[in-house]
Amino acid sequence: MKVVELSGGVGGARMARGLAAVPTIDLTVVVNVGDDDDIHGLHVSADLDTVIYTLAGVEGPDGWGRSADTFAFNDELARFGVDNRFRLGDLDLALNLFRTQALAAGKSLSAITSEIATSFDIGADVVPATDDPLRTEVKVERDEWISFQEYFVMRAHQDEVEELRYTGSEAAHPAPGVLDAIGAADLIVIAPSNPPLSIWPILAIDEIRQAITRHQRVVAVSPLFGGKALKGPADRVMASLGLPPGNAGVMEAYAGVVDTLVVDTQDADDARQLGGVEVMVTDTRIKEVARARELAEEILAR
Amino acid sequence: MKVVELSGGVGGARMARGLAAVPTIDLTVVVNVGDDDDIHGLHVSADLDTVIYTLAGVEGPDGWGRSADTFAFNDELARFGVDNRFRLGDLDLALNLFRTQALAAGKSLSAITSEIATSFDIGADVVPATDDPLRTEVKVERDEWISFQEYFVMRAHQDEVEELRYTGSEAAHPAPGVLDAIGAADLIVIAPSNPPLSIWPILAIDEIRQAITRHQRVVAVSPLFGGKALKGPADRVMASLGLPPGNAGVMEAYAGVVDTLVVDTQDADDARQLGGVEVMVTDTRIKEVARARELAEEILAR
Repeated sequence: MKVVELSGGVGGARMARGLAAVPTIDLTVVVNVGDDDDIHGLHVSADLDTVIYTLAGVEGPDGWGRSADTFAFNDELARFGVDNRFRLGDLDLALNLFRTQALAAGKSLSAITSEIATSFDIGADVVPATDDPLRTEVKVERDEWISFQEYFVMRAHQDEVEELRYTGSEAAHPAPGVLDAIGAADLIVIAPSNPPLSIWPILAIDEIRQAITRHQRVVAVSPLFGGKALKGPADRVMASLGLPPGNAGVMEAYAGVVDTLVVDTQDADDARQLGGVEVMVTDTRIKEVARARELAEEILAR
Repeated sequence: MKVVELSGGVGGARMARGLAAVPTIDLTVVVNVGDDDDIHGLHVSADLDTVIYTLAGVEGPDGWGRSADTFAFNDELARFGVDNRFRLGDLDLALNLFRTQALAAGKSLSAITSEIATSFDIGADVVPATDDPLRTEVKVERDEWISFQEYFVMRAHQDEVEELRYTGSEAAHPAPGVLDAIGAADLIVIAPSNPPLSIWPILAIDEIRQAITRHQRVVAVSPLFGGKALKGPADRVMASLGLPPGNAGVMEAYAGVVDTLVVDTQDADDARQLGGVEVMVTDTRIKEVARARELAEEILAR
């Protein structure tokens, strides 16, 4: 059973871990790179790393970064007056420096990601949506455009999001293997990631959007619980972009793309009013790998 | 009393600490940059950092790097197959990344070094010999030219040194402040560093060599103890480059530049045979700051 997951960071990584735990699934995770950024001259790929670390079982306590990491480097930056609010652990730094050096040597992000995944002995293919530069930028008050990480980490996603753009998406092509994996997949799973911030940047690549739209079986897992994001600003961002509240907003975010929407049991009432797609109601809290695997199996069995 | 020290790494750093401990001394340390290298894309300035860390009292147990540093980053590089024999501690890395970023932003090495020294609250001026690229390269067997760090760290200075070159020295100018400091100095101290590997790269900059040669009072401290280097390859390198053994070799290494040679008590006999310069015999073991300070005072009092 070939499955392709479209994934952002923490929620997508946990969904990936559940899918990867099902022995019959041959998994390819296509990961958002709109969050990629230059931090201290390093090419940081936050979502790719969260997916790889989580699949390897070495993710940090809040889902990002490495478990048991130390922050000697990051703390010491303060001595030199360097803005160190984007916290890079000492172990995490090794990966980021390796990637930065390999990119500088001319390797593609997808080739490097494959090497990294191999070094962590991960049983799934993890692929960036594109090897081309594609950056999610956020318009906040007073017509100011800022990078995703500036919005999300430095400003702790407190700003109201007025508009989003995916700079570079028009020129971006899918990374090698992405279209083949989608074409060969029996099932596409859109992770319970933030639709505008994590999934739209993937679908902003036209060839990917077309391939997903053409696919017969696309299941999205809603990131909402009782109409709100567990953490992060998904519900606020969707509202400020003019999407309807609750899972109606998720459905609209994926209009024309998704066949089935999986919603949490807390949102069973809300889900009854949704039309146009199949709705599956179940427990979507997948922090624990056992539940993530069950959810994967429930989706497969449908 | 204005003193300029020409310094390499560990020995020079300890001499600098002794000079800086004398309240009447206004110290400028002019530091070798021939050892600078690109490690994982970072601009490493091994001698500058050793001098700054030692003056700040935060040097590592073997003289290089930071005290109480950790190597989580460096060890983790092995996962990705990165050559991590040049050991960069997590604290040390913060400085190296700060410098690399500041250089990339167009700042000069001397301006950055000054900022770093200020951040460690050091009471001496620490200046790179030059802001221009100047690299010590080592010819080993079979006409192979390798970088200083490849010779010194990666190959643990086991190769026989057939020849040295200081690539970039012809085009290099002294960093801002170097010639002024030499011109204003009451005394020049050449540190007990490796003459061909640490001091010659400084003197390879013609304007510096001329200024030092013109100076009335230049005292060199020999790096030899009983004719051998305490650690490091100084005696072997001098021999393989055709210099005579013992302090005669040190004198020849500094011929025309030095007025006084300070040798260790173990080399009192050897020193008696030296002609052409004043010789001062004393205890030159300066690992302890108290003794380094006494040596500085003895040199001043002469």
